Amino acid sequence: MKIGILGTGMISEQFVSAAQEISEIECVAVFNRSQEKADLFKAKYHLAQAFADYEQLLDQQLIDTVYVGLPNSLHYAYAKQAAEHGLNIIIEKPFVSNIQEFDELIRITEERQVKVVEVTRVLSLPNYQVIGEHLSEIGKISLIFLSYCQYSRKYNALLEGGTPNVFSSDFSGGALMDLGVYNIHFIIGLFGIWDKLSYIAKKRDNEVDLSGILLMEYPDFIVSASQSKNSFCDNQIIIQGEKGTISVPGIPSKLDHVYLSDKDQKTLISVEQSRNNFYYALSDILHVFHDDQLYQARLAHSRLVMLTLDQARASAGIVFKADRSDR
Amino acid sequence: MKIGILGTGMISEQFVSAAQEISEIECVAVFNRSQEKADLFKAKYHLAQAFADYEQLLDQQLIDTVYVGLPNSLHYAYAKQAAEHGLNIIIEKPFVSNIQEFDELIRITEERQVKVVEVTRVLSLPNYQVIGEHLSEIGKISLIFLSYCQYSRKYNALLEGGTPNVFSSDFSGGALMDLGVYNIHFIIGLFGIWDKLSYIAKKRDNEVDLSGILLMEYPDFIVSASQSKNSFCDNQIIIQGEKGTISVPGIPSKLDHVYLSDKDQKTLISVEQSRNNFYYALSDILHVFHDDQLYQARLAHSRLVMLTLDQARASAGIVFKADRSDR
Repeated sequence: MKIGILGTGMISEQFVSAAQEISEIECVAVFNRSQEKADLFKAKYHLAQAFADYEQLLDQQLIDTVYVGLPNSLHYAYAKQAAEHGLNIIIEKPFVSNIQEFDELIRITEERQVKVVEVTRVLSLPNYQVIGEHLSEIGKISLIFLSYCQYSRKYNALLEGGTPNVFSSDFSGGALMDLGVYNIHFIIGLFGIWDKLSYIAKKRDNEVDLSGILLMEYPDFIVSASQSKNSFCDNQIIIQGEKGTISVPGIPSKLDHVYLSDKDQKTLISVEQSRNNFYYALSDILHVFHDDQLYQARLAHSRLVMLTLDQARASAGIVFKADRSDR
Repeated sequence: MKIGILGTGMISEQFVSAAQEISEIECVAVFNRSQEKADLFKAKYHLAQAFADYEQLLDQQLIDTVYVGLPNSLHYAYAKQAAEHGLNIIIEKPFVSNIQEFDELIRITEERQVKVVEVTRVLSLPNYQVIGEHLSEIGKISLIFLSYCQYSRKYNALLEGGTPNVFSSDFSGGALMDLGVYNIHFIIGLFGIWDKLSYIAKKRDNEVDLSGILLMEYPDFIVSASQSKNSFCDNQIIIQGEKGTISVPGIPSKLDHVYLSDKDQKTLISVEQSRNNFYYALSDILHVFHDDQLYQARLAHSRLVMLTLDQARASAGIVFKADRSDR
C-alpha cells in the first residue's frame, strides 16, 4: 500500500510513525497547502515527495491510497477527489461532517470501485475484544458510563478571541466530533444502534459544543457518554450489570487495563497491549481492505456512528456549515 | 428533645445509635404496628416504652418529637398526625411522596406551631462545607457527575416475584427516591435550582425505577446523577471546572476524601470526619430546630429537592399511588 498523507498535523505525524512499523505500508508523499509545511514533514519522516497542489499528487500515480488527516469539514471533498482518481482512502474520525456526505462518498467509491475505511482506534484494540468476550459474565446490563474529557491546548486560544478549527462550526468541530466520537465507536461496536438518544451540550456562541452529555437508550440499559474540551477528569468506562461491573480507567481508544468486578473482588482481565493504538488500527485497516465482508461490516458500523453524531447534533441544535445546502 | 421512633427498620436502628451519642436527645419510645417488633427494638436499645398503637404513643405525652423512619409513602400521614398532636417531626429522606404532600404538611405544622426537619446527611458533613469553599478554585464549571449505585439486598426478592416496599409504587419507592435523593441534596445544596431537567430511567413493570440517569442543566454547566439498585460501581462525584477538578470517591452522604486536581497535581483537601454521617445530621437538626432562619432555609432546600424528585418522576413517567387523587 503506497500512501499519500493529506495534512501535516499531529494526527498525520502519529499515522506515519505507526505506518513505518508496518511493512505492507509505505508512506510515499505528503500534501499541505503550504509547500513549506509539506517539505518539513517530508524531511522529518523521510518521504519521497511533498506537494502543495492536491491535483498534482493525485495525477502522478505515486500512490494507491490517501490518508485524510485534515480538519473534519475537509474530509468529504478530499476523499471524494481521491476516489474520483481511483484511489483508496483511509479517513480519520469523524468520517465526514454528516450522513449526506457519508452516503454520497460511499456512492462514489462504489462507482469507482475503490474503498474507504475509517480509522477506528477503539474497535481494533485487543482489549476491546476482551471486553466483548466478558460482557455475558456481568448479567443484564443496567447503566454504562464513558468519559472522554480533555482540556484542549487550543481552548486558551479560543478564550483569547480566536477560533481554532476544532472549535469552529465551519470546520465541523466541537467536543462530540473530536472526542465523543470515540465513546460512540465504543458503544456502537458492542451494542449496535440505540433506541433513543439525546445530547445536552454547552456550546460556544451557540455554535459548537465545548462539553456535553450524550444519553443513548437501549431496550435494557442506558448509556451516558460525556465529552469535554474545556475541563478534565480521570476518564473511565464503567459497564454495570446485575451480576458485576466491567471498569476501564482511561479513554475508549486506549483500554490498557480492564477490570471485572463482582461484589467480592476485582480482577484484571485485560491482555498486554504491546503496541500503540494507531498500530492496531492500521493493522486492522489492512485486513478490512482485503476482506470485502469485513469491509461492508465496517462501513455499516461507521454509518451508525455518523447517524449517531447527526442525531446528537440535531438534539443539541449544533449545525455545521457543511449541513447547509447553500455552503 | 424526647423522641418517639416510628419504624424499627435499619434506618431507625442507625438513628437511635447516633442519637444515643448526643446528650440533648433522648429516645424514649418506639412504634411498630407489630407489638413484638416494637418490644424487640425497645429491648435492644433500652427504650422506656414500645407501642403498636400510634395514637396511644401520641396521646401519652411521653415525647415532644417523632422520628419518621417508615416507608416513604407513610411519611406524610404519620408526620401529619404528629403535628396535629403538637409534636415536632424529624423526617427521613425523601421528605414525603410529592410536593402536594409537602406543602400540605408545612401548612399543618405552621398552623400547629411545630417544626418538621428532614434528615439531610449530605448537607451537614464537614467535607460538604469544604467542597463549597473550594469550588471557586476550579474556575467555571463544565460538567458534574455523581453516582449512587448500590445493588439492593431486596432486589433478589423482587426477581423472585415479591414486591419489597422499596420497589413498590404503592410505597413511593424506586432508585431515585431511595438513592438519587442524596445526589439531589448534594447538588441543590451547592447550586440551588436547575433550569431544565430530564430523567431517563429503566423501570420495573413500567412502574418504579430500578436505575436511571438524571440530567440537571444549569446556565453554565450540566449535572449527571446516576442511581441504580440493580447494579454497582465504584461510586464517585466529579466536579469538572476550566481550571481544575474536585473529585470524591464514594457516595454523596459520606464524602470521606475530597481531592482538588489541576493538570499537574492532585491534593487531598478533606478534613478528618471523626463521627458517622448520622451523628453530623442529628447535631445539625438540633441547630435547625433552634434557629428559625436556618429552619426556613432548610425547608426551602427540602422543597427544591421535593420539586426535583417530582419533576424527575414526571419526566420518566413514574407515578405513585400517593400522586393519585383517588388514593
